[in-house]
Amino acid sequence: MELNIKLDRQGKKPLFLQIAEQIVNDINLGVIKQGTRLPAERKLAKSLSVNRSTVINAYNELTDRGYVQSHIGSGTTVTNVDIETEKEDIFVWRDLLSGQAESLINPYNSALKELLSERNLIAMDAGIADPDHYPKKALADISQELLLSEGNMLLQHGSPQGLLSLRESIVSIMKSRGIHSQVENVIVLNGSQQGLDLVSRILLEPGDSIILEEPSFLGAIDVFRTYGVRLVAIPTDGEGMVIDYLEKAIKRTKPKFIYTIPTYHNPTGLSLSSTRRKELLKIANRNHVPILEDDPYGLICFDNQPFPALKALDSTESVIYLSTFSKVIANGIRLGWMVAPPELTRIVVAAKQINDMHSGNFIQRMIDVYYRKGFFEQQILDIRGKYKLKRDTMLKALAKYAPEGMSWNTPQGGYFVWATLPDGLSAIKVLEEAVHNKVAFVAGPVFYLNDNGLRKIRLNYSYVSLEDINRGIKILCNLIESMKKKFTKNRVLEKEYLPIV
Amino acid sequence: MELNIKLDRQGKKPLFLQIAEQIVNDINLGVIKQGTRLPAERKLAKSLSVNRSTVINAYNELTDRGYVQSHIGSGTTVTNVDIETEKEDIFVWRDLLSGQAESLINPYNSALKELLSERNLIAMDAGIADPDHYPKKALADISQELLLSEGNMLLQHGSPQGLLSLRESIVSIMKSRGIHSQVENVIVLNGSQQGLDLVSRILLEPGDSIILEEPSFLGAIDVFRTYGVRLVAIPTDGEGMVIDYLEKAIKRTKPKFIYTIPTYHNPTGLSLSSTRRKELLKIANRNHVPILEDDPYGLICFDNQPFPALKALDSTESVIYLSTFSKVIANGIRLGWMVAPPELTRIVVAAKQINDMHSGNFIQRMIDVYYRKGFFEQQILDIRGKYKLKRDTMLKALAKYAPEGMSWNTPQGGYFVWATLPDGLSAIKVLEEAVHNKVAFVAGPVFYLNDNGLRKIRLNYSYVSLEDINRGIKILCNLIESMKKKFTKNRVLEKEYLPIV
Repeated sequence: MELNIKLDRQGKKPLFLQIAEQIVNDINLGVIKQGTRLPAERKLAKSLSVNRSTVINAYNELTDRGYVQSHIGSGTTVTNVDIETEKEDIFVWRDLLSGQAESLINPYNSALKELLSERNLIAMDAGIADPDHYPKKALADISQELLLSEGNMLLQHGSPQGLLSLRESIVSIMKSRGIHSQVENVIVLNGSQQGLDLVSRILLEPGDSIILEEPSFLGAIDVFRTYGVRLVAIPTDGEGMVIDYLEKAIKRTKPKFIYTIPTYHNPTGLSLSSTRRKELLKIANRNHVPILEDDPYGLICFDNQPFPALKALDSTESVIYLSTFSKVIANGIRLGWMVAPPELTRIVVAAKQINDMHSGNFIQRMIDVYYRKGFFEQQILDIRGKYKLKRDTMLKALAKYAPEGMSWNTPQGGYFVWATLPDGLSAIKVLEEAVHNKVAFVAGPVFYLNDNGLRKIRLNYSYVSLEDINRGIKILCNLIESMKKKFTKNRVLEKEYLPIV
Repeated sequence: MELNIKLDRQGKKPLFLQIAEQIVNDINLGVIKQGTRLPAERKLAKSLSVNRSTVINAYNELTDRGYVQSHIGSGTTVTNVDIETEKEDIFVWRDLLSGQAESLINPYNSALKELLSERNLIAMDAGIADPDHYPKKALADISQELLLSEGNMLLQHGSPQGLLSLRESIVSIMKSRGIHSQVENVIVLNGSQQGLDLVSRILLEPGDSIILEEPSFLGAIDVFRTYGVRLVAIPTDGEGMVIDYLEKAIKRTKPKFIYTIPTYHNPTGLSLSSTRRKELLKIANRNHVPILEDDPYGLICFDNQPFPALKALDSTESVIYLSTFSKVIANGIRLGWMVAPPELTRIVVAAKQINDMHSGNFIQRMIDVYYRKGFFEQQILDIRGKYKLKRDTMLKALAKYAPEGMSWNTPQGGYFVWATLPDGLSAIKVLEEAVHNKVAFVAGPVFYLNDNGLRKIRLNYSYVSLEDINRGIKILCNLIESMKKKFTKNRVLEKEYLPIV
């Protein structure tokens, strides 16, 4: 028989696969009948001007897929393929999706996603550590040493709750946040994101409500949303969540929990005041509403010791506490932890086991040894100094270049300056212009539940160099200045700016 | 004032904490009133016979927790603590739990859990690789080299879908299973357990049905159960899932998907025959039911090349494929992958991002380089030879020692021999006796949905040494022999054995 095969020799797809797939297609269409003997390899190779090995690979492919059979003597024949099945259209998954999947279909928001693309710009949009401070050498030595000395344990299955020796180190780290935890209640996670997800999993049902301060961490908003719950926003001011609104909101919405980042908040950089911490706990307890405390930045303080965590004041075990190694060591470590109320520990561990069995012993032990050798303490001291300098550089640049009408916070710790654009300017429009000018930040609205934060921008200082901070803020401020002038000039004409104020 | 403090000097709790907590207690009870000035540090230290630094630490602790304030000149005074809050009972979480959490409350089944405890026995219950074959040296060298040369990338955030270069390696590995995947449709996971969970998450709603062959993998049964779905079992025979039952079950229960381990099944060790693979796909397609194919053992074949994966025959994109590096390299690596239908890829990646942001670049790149240097191919060849020898040793020992009435499979690949005890014996009773005799295996019932598999046992040969396989099988068979005699003798008297047959 003659086969009708056309090869695209410039194409990316290997020739053998092109041959195989065209034969499959012809079998499925019924052009090549069952039982047909295909041309001998040598013959087909000649007619297509390809190597014989290409045809052999194509036939092997067809054999693997069950379309042909090869027998010595009788050559390669088309098997009794069930044409009915093979001709079916591509499977449609859409109508099988769960409610969670539906909420994931829309392009997911993510600063992370943006960050991954290669960009040649001043990336003040990052929420990440300075790679110059990643302890590469220390971790390289520790990793090699450990695999040689403890390899059997490190590469073996581990506890779903996490490596005991790392949990001991975490208990010790927790003391500097005022928390006296026990190894029994510490759970190791693949970053605190997994903690947000596991807590949601064990507490939330579609239709539930939760309360969170606004603005809030994007990754948390994203995960809560997929659980089909109602997100109730409490506004913030310079002292963090405005507690006055809390009790009314609790009584109205009966939330499953209150999610909060009380210390060096993302995106605002601010901390909940000491008085409000006590009020928050009091109101939450009085109404039997637990608290999910997210504390990724608690150790990165500049001027004073930070407020102790809410968990440190939690005498009733109503606070679930999350933190991470990402912000101090390196973001890609993917290792965080939870301090759980004793009643919940076993359930969270079971959920973790269902989710991914356990976190790898190797990376856990690496960070454990990094801590035990004193590197972690030193790293904290180092980055406090370095990020403080970066913060100061950013604040100085803002003071120097910012146009009238622009304002910003002075963070006492963490990664971010939170700024407000002059009247009438849109953070999203400014971002578009800024990216043209090779400067990036995060526009406020992503941190809000509704159409708020339109004039807010989050400026990260941890990732960029001192020089770039100064240069970036200068470019940005000049741009804001010129957009402001344009806005003022065209105030009546350009309606698109008007609803933003 | 005098404080009433009793110290337990032999106790585990540090003295400073004992002091602080007793003071907190007295404040909460109202024994120590607000505004009270605590004794000077030196004085209290003397009266308790402790170092002054212990009292300083105790007072710092109280300050951290917000119970006292220290001012130069006025000493340490009790703050205006809100007694109402502090006296509250421990928070009760029980009534806040989600449906998923409810299903996680009961002690979770897990072979893994057992394994973690230190035991001095012949562990034929494991589902794990032989640690002697863990490539410790190769990974140690690769890890150190990589952290020094690519540390900035490895410790930085990565793609939620997984490192591109690892996905390229996976595409290449997939060819040996007959699957022609694209990097766009490969998703890196923290072990294939995470894949089971993510697929459940995007497809299942409480009340849905899914079909799976019985017996099946415990970790999969566990995860499906937490989603509140109905599990519909299809029996298996020597050729795998008995397809004759399938279509009727589909029409009756309208399942969201069919979960199957078609190659070197866990626990049976058997493979779905070539004919049945085609029938399974045909029936599934005809009824618009997708397939979740779990293929952890597909690369570990002994006698012949394994059947190509179901995914290799999937012309309609109705199969989701899962596999892992655990069984070939080492169990604790926690790196698996999915080959997803194009329509689902973006949704699974979004779910992965919600779940834990992304897998760590470091471990991904380690395994990628391990593959690219040719170690992975070599490792597969090595363990095929070694596990084949172990399988043969186990089969020989069974042939030599097994009492009449006992039978077992001959696996062509994978980790397990699946055996049936003589009439009237209970796998669970035999396991109890075996553990007394320092031999472990997994009793059949955990792999079944209802009270089936009572006479089935799963014997692992990958983890134990050749010598222990022989010794373990001998001990086990002798024990079965003697239990069988006892059963036959007491047949009428010992009712407890009777319902088991």
